[in-house]
Amino acid sequence: MAEPKEMRRVYFFGDGSAEGHAGLRDLLGGKGADLAEMSRLQIPVPPGFTLTTRTCLQYFEEGNRLPVGLADEIQQALSRLERVLGKRFGDSKNPLLVSVRSGARISMPGMMDTILNLGLSFETTEGLAHLSGNPRFAWDCFRRLIQMYGEVVLGVGSALFEKALEETRARRGVLQDSHLNATELEDLSRRFLAIVKGVGGMDFPLQPGDQLLGAVGAVFRSWNNERAITYRRLHRIPSDWGTAVTVQAMVFGNRGENSATGVAFTRDPATGEKAPYGEYLPNAQGEDVVAGTRTPRPLSRDGESPEGTSLEESLPEAHRQLLEVFRKLESHYRDMLDIEFTVEEGKLYILQSRRGKRTGFASVRCAVEMVEEKLIHPEDAVQRVEPEQLGQLLAPIFEPIAKESALAEGRLLAKGLNAGPGAASGRAVLSADRVVEMARRGERVILVRLETSPEDIAGMAAAEGILTARGGMTSHAAVVARGMGKICVVGCQDLTVDYEQRNFRFKDLEFREGQPLSVDGTTGEVMQGSLPTIPSEIIQVLVERTLTPEQSRVYQQFSTLLEWADQAKGLGVRTNADTPTDARVARAFGAKGIGLCRTEHMFFGTDRIAAVREMILSETEAERRRALDKLLPMQRQDFVGIFREMEGLPVTIRLLDPPLHEFLPKDSATVEEIAAEMGVSVERLWSKVESLHEFNPMLGHRGCRLGLTYPEIYETQARAIFEAAAVLISQGRKVLPEIMIPLVGIPEEYRRLAAMVQRMGEQVIQESGCRLEARIGTMIEIPRACLLAEEIGRAADFFSFGTNDLTQLGFGFSRDDAGVYLPFYVDQGILPRDPFQSLDPEGIGRLIRMAVEEGRKGNPGLKVGICGEHGGDPASVEFFHDAGLDYVSCSPYRVPVARLAAARAALARPR
Amino acid sequence: MAEPKEMRRVYFFGDGSAEGHAGLRDLLGGKGADLAEMSRLQIPVPPGFTLTTRTCLQYFEEGNRLPVGLADEIQQALSRLERVLGKRFGDSKNPLLVSVRSGARISMPGMMDTILNLGLSFETTEGLAHLSGNPRFAWDCFRRLIQMYGEVVLGVGSALFEKALEETRARRGVLQDSHLNATELEDLSRRFLAIVKGVGGMDFPLQPGDQLLGAVGAVFRSWNNERAITYRRLHRIPSDWGTAVTVQAMVFGNRGENSATGVAFTRDPATGEKAPYGEYLPNAQGEDVVAGTRTPRPLSRDGESPEGTSLEESLPEAHRQLLEVFRKLESHYRDMLDIEFTVEEGKLYILQSRRGKRTGFASVRCAVEMVEEKLIHPEDAVQRVEPEQLGQLLAPIFEPIAKESALAEGRLLAKGLNAGPGAASGRAVLSADRVVEMARRGERVILVRLETSPEDIAGMAAAEGILTARGGMTSHAAVVARGMGKICVVGCQDLTVDYEQRNFRFKDLEFREGQPLSVDGTTGEVMQGSLPTIPSEIIQVLVERTLTPEQSRVYQQFSTLLEWADQAKGLGVRTNADTPTDARVARAFGAKGIGLCRTEHMFFGTDRIAAVREMILSETEAERRRALDKLLPMQRQDFVGIFREMEGLPVTIRLLDPPLHEFLPKDSATVEEIAAEMGVSVERLWSKVESLHEFNPMLGHRGCRLGLTYPEIYETQARAIFEAAAVLISQGRKVLPEIMIPLVGIPEEYRRLAAMVQRMGEQVIQESGCRLEARIGTMIEIPRACLLAEEIGRAADFFSFGTNDLTQLGFGFSRDDAGVYLPFYVDQGILPRDPFQSLDPEGIGRLIRMAVEEGRKGNPGLKVGICGEHGGDPASVEFFHDAGLDYVSCSPYRVPVARLAAARAALARPR
Repeated sequence: MAEPKEMRRVYFFGDGSAEGHAGLRDLLGGKGADLAEMSRLQIPVPPGFTLTTRTCLQYFEEGNRLPVGLADEIQQALSRLERVLGKRFGDSKNPLLVSVRSGARISMPGMMDTILNLGLSFETTEGLAHLSGNPRFAWDCFRRLIQMYGEVVLGVGSALFEKALEETRARRGVLQDSHLNATELEDLSRRFLAIVKGVGGMDFPLQPGDQLLGAVGAVFRSWNNERAITYRRLHRIPSDWGTAVTVQAMVFGNRGENSATGVAFTRDPATGEKAPYGEYLPNAQGEDVVAGTRTPRPLSRDGESPEGTSLEESLPEAHRQLLEVFRKLESHYRDMLDIEFTVEEGKLYILQSRRGKRTGFASVRCAVEMVEEKLIHPEDAVQRVEPEQLGQLLAPIFEPIAKESALAEGRLLAKGLNAGPGAASGRAVLSADRVVEMARRGERVILVRLETSPEDIAGMAAAEGILTARGGMTSHAAVVARGMGKICVVGCQDLTVDYEQRNFRFKDLEFREGQPLSVDGTTGEVMQGSLPTIPSEIIQVLVERTLTPEQSRVYQQFSTLLEWADQAKGLGVRTNADTPTDARVARAFGAKGIGLCRTEHMFFGTDRIAAVREMILSETEAERRRALDKLLPMQRQDFVGIFREMEGLPVTIRLLDPPLHEFLPKDSATVEEIAAEMGVSVERLWSKVESLHEFNPMLGHRGCRLGLTYPEIYETQARAIFEAAAVLISQGRKVLPEIMIPLVGIPEEYRRLAAMVQRMGEQVIQESGCRLEARIGTMIEIPRACLLAEEIGRAADFFSFGTNDLTQLGFGFSRDDAGVYLPFYVDQGILPRDPFQSLDPEGIGRLIRMAVEEGRKGNPGLKVGICGEHGGDPASVEFFHDAGLDYVSCSPYRVPVARLAAARAALARPR
Repeated sequence: MAEPKEMRRVYFFGDGSAEGHAGLRDLLGGKGADLAEMSRLQIPVPPGFTLTTRTCLQYFEEGNRLPVGLADEIQQALSRLERVLGKRFGDSKNPLLVSVRSGARISMPGMMDTILNLGLSFETTEGLAHLSGNPRFAWDCFRRLIQMYGEVVLGVGSALFEKALEETRARRGVLQDSHLNATELEDLSRRFLAIVKGVGGMDFPLQPGDQLLGAVGAVFRSWNNERAITYRRLHRIPSDWGTAVTVQAMVFGNRGENSATGVAFTRDPATGEKAPYGEYLPNAQGEDVVAGTRTPRPLSRDGESPEGTSLEESLPEAHRQLLEVFRKLESHYRDMLDIEFTVEEGKLYILQSRRGKRTGFASVRCAVEMVEEKLIHPEDAVQRVEPEQLGQLLAPIFEPIAKESALAEGRLLAKGLNAGPGAASGRAVLSADRVVEMARRGERVILVRLETSPEDIAGMAAAEGILTARGGMTSHAAVVARGMGKICVVGCQDLTVDYEQRNFRFKDLEFREGQPLSVDGTTGEVMQGSLPTIPSEIIQVLVERTLTPEQSRVYQQFSTLLEWADQAKGLGVRTNADTPTDARVARAFGAKGIGLCRTEHMFFGTDRIAAVREMILSETEAERRRALDKLLPMQRQDFVGIFREMEGLPVTIRLLDPPLHEFLPKDSATVEEIAAEMGVSVERLWSKVESLHEFNPMLGHRGCRLGLTYPEIYETQARAIFEAAAVLISQGRKVLPEIMIPLVGIPEEYRRLAAMVQRMGEQVIQESGCRLEARIGTMIEIPRACLLAEEIGRAADFFSFGTNDLTQLGFGFSRDDAGVYLPFYVDQGILPRDPFQSLDPEGIGRLIRMAVEEGRKGNPGLKVGICGEHGGDPASVEFFHDAGLDYVSCSPYRVPVARLAAARAALARPR
């Protein structure tokens, strides 16, 4: 999108036109751009103007000071606003009030600050009271302004304000703020002013112009508050984007019973069903809805809420207009939208519209159905669904029989709103900090809160599931959980929480923090105890269960989307699978082969480990070969099983990788037991265990180093592979083995072992009379292999990056030990993210690019894939696409995610 | 040197002219090129011709077959030879006999094959008998030919020949072959022919032409025998050089008492003294001298050997001519030469001349004195001495008092020839294989043999010292030991060895294999037991001992050479030193600063470890700081000591690197003891030990990771450094601290810690009022740091490569564990050398080049050094020169070696 050349800092909108438009999102923020766009669409938005994100960066550059000239530009825009509305800012007769809101390029809900009701002073409040005929409303606005401004701009904590409010309520003997009258609120305003003066040591600015400039700066600064920084880290938003600031005329949802405020989605954000979904509160301001402190009412009659409470019934004209706006916006944006609206004395205003956050289920359904509705093309649908969201469709469900009996046993505690689908069990924990702490120790935890707030983000991310007592589908908890793909139930009204006593109740049943709960985010059910989970409906299809029509639809749309994804012809997707079962699941998920079949388990099985230990204890090669000969038929059978499942598709088999000591016991009791089993002396076994001990096993005698020092091990494996292939080929089946030599760092290691494998293949061809073909290649996981990739490539059919080890060695991090400092590094922003979860593009990625380029220099036909755990991470898949790989390989359940990620990368940047 | 354009394969020499010359060493091998050169110099060499090294490679390319046309070219050269000598090859009247010898670009003494006496058959032997009037000589030549040809060309083992020879001797009742008469030798020749037929299944070729072609092929092939491969690996000679083959007319040192054969050096190869040094045997062929089976006689009267035995006395004219040849050759080649000569019936022939191998002492003396003689320039002198040889001048000597008392106690067992200077103690071992085995287990071993042969190379390399009963200064043992810089005594006539019984005797004193011996290679003394060693004379100077005039000369010449080296302005040389003593020694050796001062020992000292453990057991930062405060004054004092020794020179201090668990006990007994000392419970200490345990400590919580998670540790260290600097500066001294942050892999790690160090510096400046300056930089030892060097460089004053860890991580080798497979890798040629000893230029070197280039992109003024152990390895120093580093840092005793290596690199490839 071209940006205007001049450094225009202020963009006006309103009155059916606008200087900005939706294309200027980077400059005006999502909110500002959408307000401008809506203005152009003749949708009723309160007029206003937006200060650009560049202005925000300028503000930071100048040491948090408003750039020279900006105050004048704001004044000019304000004058235009006054002209449009026929009101004046600071005018005691007909005062213009404005809100000041943040708005980044990407929505960061609730992370930055907002200030409402700017423009009020004692004089203008009086004016407003007179004009509105509602002094209570006017003074309520003023006290809210002082509190908000005091907190956000002047840094006065909320406690003193709350205390004053509480005292006033007590004195008056009422429970709710809305029962305080105008005089009481005016008094309260004065007390608030005194609090500001007392704590902040400065006066609240009673000049509206000062208020506005102070608010603008504070909202700019809120880009760098702690919550916003955490959110950016979690969502990988660059910190140099900055936020835009929108100054907008106030409209009031709290001007009486013919006023209201609400939020709505054009489709159901939980299921994706094509039906508007929303909530509102009569006589309220926006933050009352989002905060979740009052339970909101539905937009339309739904049979569940008390009669007459819906917007459709209470404000039918506003409701009609709202549905019209929904239609207009959906057909313009061709997406599901999230809308904030206010009805001021019967008149509808749209305060904001943005792409609606949705669950994975809703995302798939919206995308597929919008294609059917001809709103979008299949490629758009593919780009609409975040790969991680697909993971939600694969999220576990509770094992049906266990759940049924739990319900039968009366373990259902309560039902709330199904805000984040999936099933989660864990210990209930009542504070976000403790969740983080326990999750770090590896515990599964459910965060239980009355409601969540932006401070809880880190705890929400670390929890298995989230449960709140208050709030609707648009509450903070619900929105954030949807964004994170977290299992979540909100608005569970039977729940009460006592943070001090560290306990919680469902009606009169009391639980202590730490007791286990199970939360079903798909149904909203909360159950006592820890229920077992099983794979999701999608996965049930694969094991051929009968589905309900609704489940069938989910599965059908899921499959359709992935078929569209495959048409994008992105990276191939294979799977990491060690067993026929894994292979079957992955193939059903669309894996186009096995990218990593580890062979360790073929040595660990109870029927094999004795022979393996016999081999390890052997003194001579002949003894070792005798022991290995016992393993050969079993391993051949293993490979037969896997090849059969993957018939016609390539199967990459990694020869033995772990050091031999992993096959021996470590403690004296087990050593004694096994020595007895093996019929060798305890001393002999101990001495072997000790002689194999390594200080740094990760850097030890493993992989191809074993293959070279004990060639008989790899020979046996290669023979088992070729013999298995021969068995199937003689049955007329197609087998494509790819034999992978691990841990190569020296071209000669590879050449020697590849020649050995070749030799075994030739032997089996001669013995079996079968025509066998196999690719031979290597795992690239040692930094030096990347540096000598050209030479290794010259001799190899394929490379497969082992990004786990490459990351360990490239960073010098032991994955087993890094838990002590790596979370600290990520928390502190020393690393943007855990490089074991998402590939480090700058360092490890550079090694990979180098290896791909130079490996292909050595062998232009080289196939290049990746089989580390990054193969299932969407951001990493994007990187691998850009680096020119042929395929990624990931765990079976990540295959759909990888397919979608690969397609999106291919659509975004065709190679 | 330009090579001729046409592919000439045969170069003739002799008769005062030659087609080749000394410049064609790559093509004609050292031997062929020097023979041609000598021919041109009118030095009496037997005429002949050389087949080029390219022809050898062609031979290999064509599957070990003589290239088409070569036989004809050989025939033409042979005809020319016949014309020059007036003899005919295969002529029964006046037969021409030739030798066929290998000759690589660089001398590989004894590693490849040689065949003598080619051209003999029954007829020509008769002819030779007649012509020489010496039938015994003729038949001896024939039987030698059959045996040599049988072994080398036809692959018949030597055992059967030796057995037949033994039986003949027994039947005849004589002890030496020279006592067999003509008839017996003729019989023996026939038995030898039958052996060849019986074992090889083929006839010995009685056609001289066939003999010659067969011999040429065999000598080509001997380039690839096992000995030669091992030697090339040890000496890093590329295997694609190939060998030239020289066919030369035979002359006979075994034609009677007026014939002789010998070897000589133009200067003393042990001391470098300007006096010809040599040995000969009357009535013998060359291999008799080299094999060391007969003790040879001196060239000149020396007062030690029996009267009349010297060449000067027995063949005075030949002796005079020989001295003349020495003069001519030295003034032509401007170097010390090693010469093989033969006197045939009074006439002198030079068979070969080459650059003489010499000890480090001789190398320095020759180089310095040749400059004084104006034979060469100082730069030549620098390039004449191999850096590793300087190490010999620094080789240990026996502690004088211990040695004196050993001698007083009668522990001197024998005296031999001082073939390799230095003092070595260890267990006596009688086989090379067992030496290798024991050395691998870390034992110090002396190899004790009657004589050594090329099969013993690996054992010689692994031994601390070598002792042989037979052989002179030019025997195999002496030559090889000199090449390796190995401590060696040869020709120890009182020694007898019984390989079967595994024991040895000095006269009648018997020892079993495994008993300790001490060998003084500087004096030739062999002593019983293990004597303690101390640094060499050179080092004695540094500690201000009084030297003998001879020792002074050695020291003087050593210093002169290094001064010349410094004039080459190569890489700077610093030292790795942790203490004032190390710093003092290194500075005396010419170190220009400290490149690595590790601070670990400042935590380990007995007066500190308690505080360190207290810090580790602390629960809070405040507790940790209290413990660290106890360490601060001690560490400040440590730094004061080091800065004082290095006044005016930079001192690079690495902040704490090892993981904290290294400071805690590991076993339960020590845990109990220390818990009691510390007054904490055993459980608490154990639980700390366990919580700090790491699976891969090399990749663990150490270096800057500690510095970031426990900032108070680095803060204390930085403070101690700055405070120490302030102490000295306030005394008017110049201090140049460089603070180095270890284990950086992420630019942000570096930036944060560098800012912290900076802050501490500013605090100390404020507190002390001193003007302090310090450089802040980082150790580059994590592969990722090399990949992000530009970004790190932007913030750093210097980089110092930690090549040990970089090699560990780049290869994925744990240095502590790699002993299991790394020697195997080197033995098997999977790696050309141990990458921990000599830097891997292809992989790790590439990372280094990348980091240097990109680091300087980030900061053009970046200082770059290396402080891993490779800093003292000459080949690695060359690499670092080429990579553009500013300095290397090595252990104090390697500083002279590094200075010389740096100079040589700069002279060879100025930057």
